[in-house]
Amino acid sequence: MIDLKPGSFFENVELSEDEKEIIIIDQVQLPNNEVYLHLNQLEDLYQAIKKLQIRGAPAIGIFAGYSMYVLTQQYDNLPFEQFYQKFTEDKEYLNSSRPTAVNLPWALNRIDKVVLENKDKDVKEIVRLIGLEAKEIHREDKEMCLKICEYGLTLLEDGDGVLTICNTGPLATSRGTAIGPLILGKQRGYDFKVFANETRPLLQGARLTTLELQKAGVDVTLICDSMASIVMKNGWINVCFVGCDRIAANGDFANKIGTSTLAILAKHYGIPIYSLGPTSTIDMNCPDGNHIEIELRDPSEIAEKWYQQPMAPKKVKCYNPAFDVTEHSLLTGFVTEKGIVYPPFDVNLKKLFEE
Amino acid sequence: MIDLKPGSFFENVELSEDEKEIIIIDQVQLPNNEVYLHLNQLEDLYQAIKKLQIRGAPAIGIFAGYSMYVLTQQYDNLPFEQFYQKFTEDKEYLNSSRPTAVNLPWALNRIDKVVLENKDKDVKEIVRLIGLEAKEIHREDKEMCLKICEYGLTLLEDGDGVLTICNTGPLATSRGTAIGPLILGKQRGYDFKVFANETRPLLQGARLTTLELQKAGVDVTLICDSMASIVMKNGWINVCFVGCDRIAANGDFANKIGTSTLAILAKHYGIPIYSLGPTSTIDMNCPDGNHIEIELRDPSEIAEKWYQQPMAPKKVKCYNPAFDVTEHSLLTGFVTEKGIVYPPFDVNLKKLFEE
Repeated sequence: MIDLKPGSFFENVELSEDEKEIIIIDQVQLPNNEVYLHLNQLEDLYQAIKKLQIRGAPAIGIFAGYSMYVLTQQYDNLPFEQFYQKFTEDKEYLNSSRPTAVNLPWALNRIDKVVLENKDKDVKEIVRLIGLEAKEIHREDKEMCLKICEYGLTLLEDGDGVLTICNTGPLATSRGTAIGPLILGKQRGYDFKVFANETRPLLQGARLTTLELQKAGVDVTLICDSMASIVMKNGWINVCFVGCDRIAANGDFANKIGTSTLAILAKHYGIPIYSLGPTSTIDMNCPDGNHIEIELRDPSEIAEKWYQQPMAPKKVKCYNPAFDVTEHSLLTGFVTEKGIVYPPFDVNLKKLFEE
Repeated sequence: MIDLKPGSFFENVELSEDEKEIIIIDQVQLPNNEVYLHLNQLEDLYQAIKKLQIRGAPAIGIFAGYSMYVLTQQYDNLPFEQFYQKFTEDKEYLNSSRPTAVNLPWALNRIDKVVLENKDKDVKEIVRLIGLEAKEIHREDKEMCLKICEYGLTLLEDGDGVLTICNTGPLATSRGTAIGPLILGKQRGYDFKVFANETRPLLQGARLTTLELQKAGVDVTLICDSMASIVMKNGWINVCFVGCDRIAANGDFANKIGTSTLAILAKHYGIPIYSLGPTSTIDMNCPDGNHIEIELRDPSEIAEKWYQQPMAPKKVKCYNPAFDVTEHSLLTGFVTEKGIVYPPFDVNLKKLFEE
């Protein structure tokens, strides 16, 4: 049953009471079935990321941290060297599950650092510290999201029409990024008119964003990705809020395939567009969008997935990039937990990392 | 079995040998099932248009002409006044099946004119003349398409990357409009790299365009509508070829939802974009795009259609326009059977109708 209290939301990742399992909603089965998965086996954890049962860059980071915690509990009786070898194998396998999301290696490296900094301690104690670090990653994410929501909300007025793509709600991040301000606003009595791109081919917008906004009591209308232009032209959109999977040092950013289209349309129609996400998504070692690797996914996601029968002729070639890169010149600003960043992005993103 | 001879194509509408039935491929069942429908009942003919078993503006015109022929044969024993009353009822009912395609009333009015100009003749003779007019509409369409294909082909070079949307091949028109030149080019030994937008929600691109290009031996890659931006950015597209459902006097034109997005993207990336279609699609009585009525279709097409189970939460609102209007300033040119029309469109479209 969906709780319809204004502003209510899902928990994306939880640790079981005995801390031996991770509990997630299987996002692939939403919105029809609300199935909770209890996971603690390496292959299941790897597949959960790969198959998008858990998705959204920050949620993947939290999930990766807890994954190392539930896994290492299973071999905390090993001497350190063997422990660390197994730890490293597990970590690297998990890290290979999705190439684009920067939060995955970021979280795994934090856990790795805890292990190495405490390598002289008892392995059981190291595992306890892994657990604390994983929980800290989760707590920080909630705090970050709430700050992003607060900053994002300052960009909105009651009654605004907002266009979004993919899923950037509490299912993907602990309190939401791009749609977080809409849910937070609802808690405070704002009414928005949200349009959600269905987000082919995996339909995260249709399946998840509409569900999360319905749960929060936010007015939402589902459209096909090809309809963003007409809703903008109709004058229904005051602002576009999108997420980000990876931000390069010059402000080019990778996000769900279709985001660059929204940015080009927004520019054409004179509508502001913001990318909302934590600063952990910024990769200052990546100079620009040309250096962002784009994950190519299985052609069957376009031709067959979800359908009663294949919707394209047999053996048709498909090109299926999961992300595209939006040029920084098209973006109005980044909304981060440290504030809103405006152009020139190469200068202002750098400032976020100077204390 | 699909014939794989280079440049081969489907026949979209045929009259049975005894001329009492229309034979069409049920386009809704493609590409999985090649089912031929034999139709001669008013409700079936109406539903065939409404349900998109026959689709594409020119094919609908041809179909409408033959529809009146197979229907009127069934009451050619009535006196003229009763005959004309029934004829008018049938015609108006068929005309109500789809509001946007201008070819539907255009073809029906041609048939109406034949009836009125010959009202003093025997009703059986009038019906014979209806048949001749319907065949003439079909013949003209083939001839028009071939001219459009020839003019379109002058815009292409061997090896070009071409992006298209929806289905504008021989299934929609007798020899194709927007993809017609690609098939004609294949017959002449050209190799193109075609990218086909899947064209949500009805997937005409995925189901039909890829099938037609495969049949013709043309290299085709299927993409989601949201991927047009990245394939342009990758440098894979030299030109966009799209169809048109209605052209206003100033050059604004309605075409499949998503076309205006392609035009805005093409402008951003500096890629030419042409709309290919017959001059019957030009409505000089319609001053601009604001006067083009946009057909709104059933929300279930977005949320449920084709899927194994609904892909959006229950009761979610959907906005489902079948077409959008592309501003004339975004278009490089119209390719018609009378030649290629360049800006200023308000002046140059008018010239097409001045002898």
